Amino acid sequence: MRATVIRGAGDVRVEEVPDAALREPADAVVRVVLTCVCGSDLWPYKSMERDEAGQRIGHEFLGVVEEAGSAVRSVRPGDLVVSPFTFSDGTCRFCREGLQTSCPSGGVYGSPGEDGAQGEAVRVPHADGTLVRLPVEQDDPLLPSLLTLADVFPTGHHAAVSAEVRRGGSVAVVGDGAVGLCGVLAAARLGAERLIIMGRHPDRTELAREFGATDVVAERGDAGVRRVRELTGGEGVRSVLECVGTAESMATATRLVRDGGAIGYVGVPQEGGGVDLRELFMRNVRIGGGVCPARAYVEELMPDVLSGAVRPGRVFDHVTDLDGVPDAYRAMADRKALKALVRV
Amino acid sequence: MRATVIRGAGDVRVEEVPDAALREPADAVVRVVLTCVCGSDLWPYKSMERDEAGQRIGHEFLGVVEEAGSAVRSVRPGDLVVSPFTFSDGTCRFCREGLQTSCPSGGVYGSPGEDGAQGEAVRVPHADGTLVRLPVEQDDPLLPSLLTLADVFPTGHHAAVSAEVRRGGSVAVVGDGAVGLCGVLAAARLGAERLIIMGRHPDRTELAREFGATDVVAERGDAGVRRVRELTGGEGVRSVLECVGTAESMATATRLVRDGGAIGYVGVPQEGGGVDLRELFMRNVRIGGGVCPARAYVEELMPDVLSGAVRPGRVFDHVTDLDGVPDAYRAMADRKALKALVRV
Repeated sequence: MRATVIRGAGDVRVEEVPDAALREPADAVVRVVLTCVCGSDLWPYKSMERDEAGQRIGHEFLGVVEEAGSAVRSVRPGDLVVSPFTFSDGTCRFCREGLQTSCPSGGVYGSPGEDGAQGEAVRVPHADGTLVRLPVEQDDPLLPSLLTLADVFPTGHHAAVSAEVRRGGSVAVVGDGAVGLCGVLAAARLGAERLIIMGRHPDRTELAREFGATDVVAERGDAGVRRVRELTGGEGVRSVLECVGTAESMATATRLVRDGGAIGYVGVPQEGGGVDLRELFMRNVRIGGGVCPARAYVEELMPDVLSGAVRPGRVFDHVTDLDGVPDAYRAMADRKALKALVRV
Repeated sequence: MRATVIRGAGDVRVEEVPDAALREPADAVVRVVLTCVCGSDLWPYKSMERDEAGQRIGHEFLGVVEEAGSAVRSVRPGDLVVSPFTFSDGTCRFCREGLQTSCPSGGVYGSPGEDGAQGEAVRVPHADGTLVRLPVEQDDPLLPSLLTLADVFPTGHHAAVSAEVRRGGSVAVVGDGAVGLCGVLAAARLGAERLIIMGRHPDRTELAREFGATDVVAERGDAGVRRVRELTGGEGVRSVLECVGTAESMATATRLVRDGGAIGYVGVPQEGGGVDLRELFMRNVRIGGGVCPARAYVEELMPDVLSGAVRPGRVFDHVTDLDGVPDAYRAMADRKALKALVRV
């Protein structure tokens, strides 16, 4: 079969690899229908050290179950399913409490030894704990929005939950990438009243408004902080969704948040994440978040996708096929595309 | 009147100062009955740069209202009252939601321009928003425990609340000072089932057991982390109370906490506080806390003090009078005393 392999910064290729196959009785093999490129795929694309052996890549997909191991009970061949970007056994203490990303038997697609999602098929370990059946047909126009349940929409939701977004609350979102925009969507869904996106790319801020943003703050640094304070009676917002992961974005988040508020972060922290408790101590600001346990949120978010109440698939502004994956990486790295959808 | 003045590291003196006096209609003057020395008083005692003008010091006291301004409604001369270590107007949006430490009209005793608590009397700004009447007589043996409502007991409680201590939960407390011990007391009061104190001073760990600790871990570093994991099924604890404030203690807290758990910190952060989100991201650990809004907790905690259900005053192991304040600082700095009570 064909799948995407990365061998170093800038070197992403689609090539022949061994077919995805069952290894354990709990495995399933899923033929990929839709996959996409994640902002986090761009880190190895920008900085991976040369590795001639190469590494499979991609972790978001939906598709059709092709084969199920003898222990699999919840899905069977022919089922259309979405997978969260991490797999998990569904039975351990962490899985049962909704922290599937800490499942000791779990892992992430595209890590060493695992299939990546940007290919024709994927071996899914712990299929029963991982896959969620989709009650639609393969040609349903909702499929791109359902694909976002794999990662980007739940991750935005995790940022909003971690930032303690409440009905009627005030929210700022730092980061106008696909996660930040899904954070806007999630915060609006949770009832945020004042919902500010920090950004200056008109196509992205337009989508943010469509997703429920009430205000766009294009100013950066001191001017941006001043503007957010003006919009919030001088106090700052109760919830900040930090959807970038740099020390600079965390410093911004720290300055936007109201005393007693919370920062929800979901960007993989660079440079230690940039938290200085001396900035937060007198103000009692909480920090929560981390890698999103997407599996925990799929059932909660799916009904609103199916009903059309939310349309997270709007983040895809670049559509291609498997051959187009290298170009998709380039377009996203150059910020010419927000997020690329791949029809396999 | 006489009060404590600090002029630099190691230079604490009790001397004649101008009498405490009303300045605003909302002020009260309180004649101090009991005060004490806080761990945070030791920072200027250890490191303050020389300042010949000197600075009043101390922020924990209870006493008798001597004079009340014309606008004061809630207390009157003769009332026995306790003051939280910060004063606040009681009417602003932050005060009304229980974050009195962020009151824009508020402040802390012993800061420039304010009276310190370690003296014969204190001017209390915003008396109505600040003071809480005590339903006991001046000679009640509960007075030392009631004094802890000014700071150390609510601060331990704030650590426990910020660490999300729940009935039946597992808890570790980093720091065996008076705040850490009050954290143990607060976590036990909130229903912690497994309650581990990290410490190796027998008198302190004994008091921790009396306060409700189920386990004492004397080991430090890797061995301490291993021991806590052994006690918690290999997972770590759901709540860590970080009651020191150094980067080292935060690193320990990070290693003791279970995935999906929370760290509550109340020690003034030194060196930036030592949070590295890279250590927390994959594990979804939350961090909360900061300066304790003691005023918000007094009504909740006082009944259990009055009933004798909790005896936080047990942290006082050194009793002196105003003349003995310099010796009390020395004893605490040398770790010969846990916390010094001053009968004025």
